[in-house]
Amino acid sequence: MPKKKKTKDPRKEAKKKLVEFGSEVLESIKKTEPPRMKVPSRSTSNILYDDKNRFYTLGEKVGTRTAANMRQVKKFAQTMCAAEFCRSLIDADKTATLREMYYTSEGWETGGFSDQGRSDKVVEDLESAFGVKREDLGLLPEEDGASIFGELVVDEGGMEVNATEAGRAGYTIPPTMNDVEFLECDAKKVLAVETMGMYHRLVQEEAWDQFDALVVALKGQPARATRRFLKRANEELGLPIHLFTDGDPFGFHIAMVVISGSAKLAYINHELAVPDAKFIGVTASDIEDYDLPTDKLRETDVKRLKQLLDDPRYSDDTWQSEIKKMLKIGKKAEQQAFSKYGLDYVVNEYLPSKLS
Amino acid sequence: MPKKKKTKDPRKEAKKKLVEFGSEVLESIKKTEPPRMKVPSRSTSNILYDDKNRFYTLGEKVGTRTAANMRQVKKFAQTMCAAEFCRSLIDADKTATLREMYYTSEGWETGGFSDQGRSDKVVEDLESAFGVKREDLGLLPEEDGASIFGELVVDEGGMEVNATEAGRAGYTIPPTMNDVEFLECDAKKVLAVETMGMYHRLVQEEAWDQFDALVVALKGQPARATRRFLKRANEELGLPIHLFTDGDPFGFHIAMVVISGSAKLAYINHELAVPDAKFIGVTASDIEDYDLPTDKLRETDVKRLKQLLDDPRYSDDTWQSEIKKMLKIGKKAEQQAFSKYGLDYVVNEYLPSKLS
Repeated sequence: MPKKKKTKDPRKEAKKKLVEFGSEVLESIKKTEPPRMKVPSRSTSNILYDDKNRFYTLGEKVGTRTAANMRQVKKFAQTMCAAEFCRSLIDADKTATLREMYYTSEGWETGGFSDQGRSDKVVEDLESAFGVKREDLGLLPEEDGASIFGELVVDEGGMEVNATEAGRAGYTIPPTMNDVEFLECDAKKVLAVETMGMYHRLVQEEAWDQFDALVVALKGQPARATRRFLKRANEELGLPIHLFTDGDPFGFHIAMVVISGSAKLAYINHELAVPDAKFIGVTASDIEDYDLPTDKLRETDVKRLKQLLDDPRYSDDTWQSEIKKMLKIGKKAEQQAFSKYGLDYVVNEYLPSKLS
Repeated sequence: MPKKKKTKDPRKEAKKKLVEFGSEVLESIKKTEPPRMKVPSRSTSNILYDDKNRFYTLGEKVGTRTAANMRQVKKFAQTMCAAEFCRSLIDADKTATLREMYYTSEGWETGGFSDQGRSDKVVEDLESAFGVKREDLGLLPEEDGASIFGELVVDEGGMEVNATEAGRAGYTIPPTMNDVEFLECDAKKVLAVETMGMYHRLVQEEAWDQFDALVVALKGQPARATRRFLKRANEELGLPIHLFTDGDPFGFHIAMVVISGSAKLAYINHELAVPDAKFIGVTASDIEDYDLPTDKLRETDVKRLKQLLDDPRYSDDTWQSEIKKMLKIGKKAEQQAFSKYGLDYVVNEYLPSKLS
């Protein structure tokens, strides 16, 4: 059962910020001063690894957008239109994809963006300027969230969903993850796996029952909604999060994005990163200990592993020695490789050993 | 409600074929004759467009595999092992991914495949030799099926799932689509859309209710399970299938793979193709009539469109004239482009007009 309840409605909070922004702009205009907006810099030099919180965050650098600058005036006006679009979404209790907002902008007085990259950047401006997530602004990525199977009951705006009764393919996390309320949870941990193949294996072998776990399919690099789910499951339900990925640089990256967030999303990692999540994926030692079928490291794998050695997120001893060992043996292995020993080996041998 | 009930259990049928195959091999050995296996050729020259059935199928060419040929003996033995693996899956009522079978083969007496492409080919051999789907052999792709929202209740091995109560992200079609039983269906049609963005739009605007439709997200090129679902919804539930894709060569391809099947899967199209499915995606005429935001056709788009003009699946007058018009205007448009006129325009204007 929930350890901690959500208290604030994040969409209401987001609207408040937008309305404040509008009022400030209006005040400036009344005083015949050019309206301004302060936006934290998202440039590489302002992305810092926060040792205490154990994730990337933005530093102190802040830029100022002003309608007084001819080069910025169109973008400033488009930012106002985007803020107004988001406010109308919140008022109507609707959501839109980033792509829909991009097309909607074709109808704005300011003219459209001519390239979605630009409208997405304006959304990032709003997120980092006001410290809110795009989801709270009503803007959603297109991508699916993870699939979940296990003893969890949620409420989605009045619709009660039991994650053992939504089909074998599981309950799919909606992009509107923040509106989902946790009603009941009998699971004791989260077992998040990289591939749908492993997900179906664990569901079929009833690993969710055996390990008292919510089995979660990350589907490769996890979507924002998935990361938000893992964060909330950890904080609100008090569940430890275990990450079972392939034993290769991409698998390590997938796990680390959950644990420490990505540099690109430094402005929002405090809502997404799960610093206490544990990596239980395939390591170079596992490759040797279990004599797993492997593939040779490619040149890009080697390059990537060497980068990880210098990445602050991988600075602890275990990561350092496992990455070095992988470089030494020159091999990688996938999580499904355990089926060499039978389809249920991963459930009967590997996971119990890793989880203990 | 179901128009036509499934009668045969396809997994039992598949097992029967496998056991027959084993018996034949045994008989040959007893007679000291080299065991053989006839496999329809899947080479390009044997893939024919069937005008009557309106999909690609295999021609008459058949190859013979024999254990008497030194070059074929290992592959023949591996095919036997794969057949035995599938039989054991059926007996245990389990499934495995193609990747798991590939790794399992590392433990076979014959030795493994050293490359998944080879084990996948052996699976295709079994499918085409015995006229069964890999799903019926217990072998699954990793990919997710589509998401469905609407008035449909299914049974998945004792678990009853209502596709209006599985969350906003919908009921996800499992890779084991063939084991799903349709219990109840109040929808009158299927509205299948290319992107998750459009899916969420239609769910949010309650288009499933307005149009009495099952809203189905194809998620780009549809998975085999999705195509099987559409085929079964059409045949067993008697629902007309409408395909709403982007207005570009890839969108046309996505629709046509549902309608006429792909050449690559010619050996199994009779189980997947839905020749009566209707294309209601964005056309060159729509781009003009609705004055949609567009992108310029790329060189690859132009090349692809010209190929479509010569493809028998696009031979009817409407396709021919729309493809020619798109080449002439040199533009393409996405399904979300209608949001230029507001988020609900697609539901209030475009779809009613296309469906009538």
